[in-house]
Amino acid sequence: MKRNLLPVIGLVVGLGLIFASMAADGSLLRYFDGPSLIITFVGSLSAIMISFPLSTLKKVPALLKMLMFAPDENRWGLIETLTHLAKKSRTEGILALENEIKDLDNPVLIHGLEMVVDGTDIDTIEEILNVELEQTEDRHSVGQQVFIKWGEYAPAFGMIGTLIGLIAMLGDLQDPALIGSGMATALLTTFYGSLLANIVFLPIAKNLEIQTANEMKTNEMIVEGVLALQRGDNPRVIEQKLQSFLSQTDKKRKKEEQKSVEVAQEF
Amino acid sequence: MKRNLLPVIGLVVGLGLIFASMAADGSLLRYFDGPSLIITFVGSLSAIMISFPLSTLKKVPALLKMLMFAPDENRWGLIETLTHLAKKSRTEGILALENEIKDLDNPVLIHGLEMVVDGTDIDTIEEILNVELEQTEDRHSVGQQVFIKWGEYAPAFGMIGTLIGLIAMLGDLQDPALIGSGMATALLTTFYGSLLANIVFLPIAKNLEIQTANEMKTNEMIVEGVLALQRGDNPRVIEQKLQSFLSQTDKKRKKEEQKSVEVAQEF
Amino acid sequence: MKRNLLPVIGLVVGLGLIFASMAADGSLLRYFDGPSLIITFVGSLSAIMISFPLSTLKKVPALLKMLMFAPDENRWGLIETLTHLAKKSRTEGILALENEIKDLDNPVLIHGLEMVVDGTDIDTIEEILNVELEQTEDRHSVGQQVFIKWGEYAPAFGMIGTLIGLIAMLGDLQDPALIGSGMATALLTTFYGSLLANIVFLPIAKNLEIQTANEMKTNEMIVEGVLALQRGDNPRVIEQKLQSFLSQTDKKRKKEEQKSVEVAQEF
Amino acid sequence: MKRNLLPVIGLVVGLGLIFASMAADGSLLRYFDGPSLIITFVGSLSAIMISFPLSTLKKVPALLKMLMFAPDENRWGLIETLTHLAKKSRTEGILALENEIKDLDNPVLIHGLEMVVDGTDIDTIEEILNVELEQTEDRHSVGQQVFIKWGEYAPAFGMIGTLIGLIAMLGDLQDPALIGSGMATALLTTFYGSLLANIVFLPIAKNLEIQTANEMKTNEMIVEGVLALQRGDNPRVIEQKLQSFLSQTDKKRKKEEQKSVEVAQEF
Amino acid sequence: MKRNLLPVIGLVVGLGLIFASMAADGSLLRYFDGPSLIITFVGSLSAIMISFPLSTLKKVPALLKMLMFAPDENRWGLIETLTHLAKKSRTEGILALENEIKDLDNPVLIHGLEMVVDGTDIDTIEEILNVELEQTEDRHSVGQQVFIKWGEYAPAFGMIGTLIGLIAMLGDLQDPALIGSGMATALLTTFYGSLLANIVFLPIAKNLEIQTANEMKTNEMIVEGVLALQRGDNPRVIEQKLQSFLSQTDKKRKKEEQKSVEVAQEF
Repeated sequence: MKRNLLPVIGLVVGLGLIFASMAADGSLLRYFDGPSLIITFVGSLSAIMISFPLSTLKKVPALLKMLMFAPDENRWGLIETLTHLAKKSRTEGILALENEIKDLDNPVLIHGLEMVVDGTDIDTIEEILNVELEQTEDRHSVGQQVFIKWGEYAPAFGMIGTLIGLIAMLGDLQDPALIGSGMATALLTTFYGSLLANIVFLPIAKNLEIQTANEMKTNEMIVEGVLALQRGDNPRVIEQKLQSFLSQTDKKRKKEEQKSVEVAQEF
Repeated sequence: MKRNLLPVIGLVVGLGLIFASMAADGSLLRYFDGPSLIITFVGSLSAIMISFPLSTLKKVPALLKMLMFAPDENRWGLIETLTHLAKKSRTEGILALENEIKDLDNPVLIHGLEMVVDGTDIDTIEEILNVELEQTEDRHSVGQQVFIKWGEYAPAFGMIGTLIGLIAMLGDLQDPALIGSGMATALLTTFYGSLLANIVFLPIAKNLEIQTANEMKTNEMIVEGVLALQRGDNPRVIEQKLQSFLSQTDKKRKKEEQKSVEVAQEF
Repeated sequence: MKRNLLPVIGLVVGLGLIFASMAADGSLLRYFDGPSLIITFVGSLSAIMISFPLSTLKKVPALLKMLMFAPDENRWGLIETLTHLAKKSRTEGILALENEIKDLDNPVLIHGLEMVVDGTDIDTIEEILNVELEQTEDRHSVGQQVFIKWGEYAPAFGMIGTLIGLIAMLGDLQDPALIGSGMATALLTTFYGSLLANIVFLPIAKNLEIQTANEMKTNEMIVEGVLALQRGDNPRVIEQKLQSFLSQTDKKRKKEEQKSVEVAQEF
Repeated sequence: MKRNLLPVIGLVVGLGLIFASMAADGSLLRYFDGPSLIITFVGSLSAIMISFPLSTLKKVPALLKMLMFAPDENRWGLIETLTHLAKKSRTEGILALENEIKDLDNPVLIHGLEMVVDGTDIDTIEEILNVELEQTEDRHSVGQQVFIKWGEYAPAFGMIGTLIGLIAMLGDLQDPALIGSGMATALLTTFYGSLLANIVFLPIAKNLEIQTANEMKTNEMIVEGVLALQRGDNPRVIEQKLQSFLSQTDKKRKKEEQKSVEVAQEF
Repeated sequence: MKRNLLPVIGLVVGLGLIFASMAADGSLLRYFDGPSLIITFVGSLSAIMISFPLSTLKKVPALLKMLMFAPDENRWGLIETLTHLAKKSRTEGILALENEIKDLDNPVLIHGLEMVVDGTDIDTIEEILNVELEQTEDRHSVGQQVFIKWGEYAPAFGMIGTLIGLIAMLGDLQDPALIGSGMATALLTTFYGSLLANIVFLPIAKNLEIQTANEMKTNEMIVEGVLALQRGDNPRVIEQKLQSFLSQTDKKRKKEEQKSVEVAQEF
């Protein structure tokens, strides 16, 4: 689960730096202003509420969870599972897969195998799985758009807040000594908007995009494997086909592991 | 109809915040200037009038209505309807569908079934329905573009207004005491343009885009269902295919509902 | 021809507003400066001359004419014409179409029918008409790009003009009283560039894009109709297929018209 | 060759205007500063050197030549040539084309005909010509990207230069009289970057894009023609197909020319 | 290996120019500020850590190595190798290729030939190689995105740093003499962000993109060649097909080399 700590570390390092930089320039307090924070954060949130239906916004917490506890994409294990299932269905018949399904936890794989066991014809399985993957991708993509849009609205509302502050200050220049602090306060919303966009919303959107792409790639492997299994392909060919989804580095690492296992077994 | 209140809530919260923020900095009145509002709103509207034909602009009120009263996309109900129709046409023949059509209200479904009952061949039905969906999508997309463009023109006209104000002020610096208030007035149009774009036009455009995508997905389900019905597919296969359009969450919730119904029926 | 007045109305309203706003701030004359206008308009035009070949630029006047006198896209009339031709060719043979061609004015329809009468085979007709439509679309698209690019270059040259003015002013600050008017003059080119882009070039580009999309849709209908006619399809099926290109609103309005005609005929 | 002068005229007019505008504001000399020019031009060039391999940069001079001496795209002549070759190969056999090849100068046409004469089968010819066209397009596209990127880096390095100047000036405000001239010098790099991008790099990139699109269209015609010739299509059909690549205006002009030739021949 | 020095030369020239320009304006020291550099570089790096999984970030060093030691893409040698293999497999049978594989070093070519020798059927080979190429492209593309995003975050964090500095300065205007140096320090982060983006991150991203495109093109040639070899195509046709991937210049240069070799052989 090491990898999922990275976003948290990034956030802590980034905000820590910003705070240290603010403290170095004097009192930290001058950078905090409740109303400015509200106009930037809640203002941009209100634009998000107009932009997306409630059903989409409800998915945001689940997406944030995905950011912290990404499913472990063990593609080697997946290849082994599918090759094992292919061998079993060749020797014991397709119905033998029924018992194996219980031990699996990937919902796409389970659904695919259930249809294979049910005897659904191959074109229907392909169509159904592809529509399902497309739907999953669409839903994730809408989720990312929430963060992309928020990353656009936050600086915009930051600028709106700064304009309000500037207009107030410029319309009332009686005490020139206050110009500086008026400007400083006006700039706070621009600062908040820029910070929220570049250390929270846009990086989260990118992270979800990359995770979705990885998940889709794994799902493609599953569809490929389930269809090959249904066609009764040779398990070795299935393994070979699925391995083409791995990178050279993955393959090399695997070979070395296998060698060391073999060496260990000799003793 | 809960979901359709969200845009209104968003708008009220967003504008409320902005007004509160303006009031906090002093008199609200200093932020209102009729001519500045006109140059930003009507000026950008004039650019919209040059950009789009009247036939497109006439659709804007209908689109705004869609924002408030989105059609209830009950995909479960749709799957049940289509499965029911498939069973009926299998047992009582395709002509039996004619009576059912009267009870439906989705125009795409009605048109599709009418063609099935008329005995139109399947390729023609597919072609006609697909052209219709494409046309609908095109029309909605042009409607969104009105708001996207308005969201671009509004800040541009805001800046044009500010330039006019700045040039006037700079060309006549005789009384330095007026510089501040001149600048403040000049900035008002930029403020209006930015506000209109980010809390009205761009969020509306995004909302319409998401709604259109949802509607298109539902229409795809209908076409899939009507064609399967015409081919005389097995109702169970039709149901399975259509369910691949639903999310896992939808399916789980449905299963639980069905269970509780079954439990309830036992008593 | 009502619709084609819209761009003119938009331009008059937009510019009227801008002028009114300028006049409200004082003398209109301070906003006019020949050299500033030349550097923005002719400067960006020179960038256009480097960007596009003469053959493309020669098409600009024709495109502007299209803006004012858009061809009347009567799709209902087109459907009636094509259905009428289909009936005629079914009853009197394909050669009977020859006399009808003279009464038509749409060049794509004429060319398509000529090939049908000549006995060209259907694949060749489809290929030729599709290449023709693609070529038309390409040419229109290059025309739009002239205006899109002009809409990018105009503000850029506006900024270049402002930079020249600023550098001149800053390099010669002997009389501080002139700073204001120097700045004002420098900002004029930015103002002109922004105005030209947002009320002339970009709206025209959008207008041409929408018109081209409409024309292409009509041309698609024609190709569909001509091919169906050549295949000898049933006129009713042709009518049905072509009607799928119309919006629900168009269809309803048409039905009501037909009813009122029928009612009128009864008397 | 008239058309190829246009880019030069554009450049002369554009730069002439800029110079005139600078001279009008006082001494031209104040706008020239060697180091500022070097940091903008060579600085952005260094970013180009990191971005592109040497093999791509070596093609830039050839692309610039293309800007000045574009190949004369005589599509009517091409149609006549291909129709003539089709007739000849029908009457005298395909080998008769061998003598004709020597008189041609378009390399794609020559290569295509050579393969036809060699008896290469039609699928191989199509594949080879298409890969060749794709490669040509890719290479031109990379060339355009050099100019697009340069058009992005130039203003960026202009801004970097201005920041260096501003930091120097602000860090050393002892003599306020120098603030103006310091600012003026700092702005020079922004001015150079904006000018280079908008009158040199971006227009050149667009010009190459349009020229490539035209060349590709001509090449498509050639491939269409060569394949039709290999299939032994009717010369009249070949002519008709190729004419669909021409615009209505081209066709009308041609017809008028032919008429005047016929009229002339009558005498 | 000449070409790979270009990025280094570009970087040295670019940074050298910037340093020279800074030195010309006074003391170089005023441009260096540790905390400002840290907030721009590490701050943007923290956003990168949130955006990408660790597995992607681990590939960055390998990508940077690719920047310096790009694989030598000798396409002529590749064509010769493939033609040679085709001849050998025609005369001595496909199994004769086994000995040749040892001398090769391109992993795609080796894998392809291994499958040919193993007797894998052609569709499976094509599918496996295509999935492999797609995976390689995806991985490279994600690597480029790290640099593209860094090129976006760096200026954003530069601006955030400048805002922090400005707010500090404006909130504490007691000694006007410090305004200048406060502004100068505040601008440093914007300067660093702009410099990092435009001379490091964005050029690297572009370089990787171009290199990936070249590598993909070479891989396409290999797939084409391996499949032709498996089909037992005529070696001359294979050579001809593969040559269509070369540019005219490459071909001409080659022909001249061959001629000079022939001339040399005559003596």
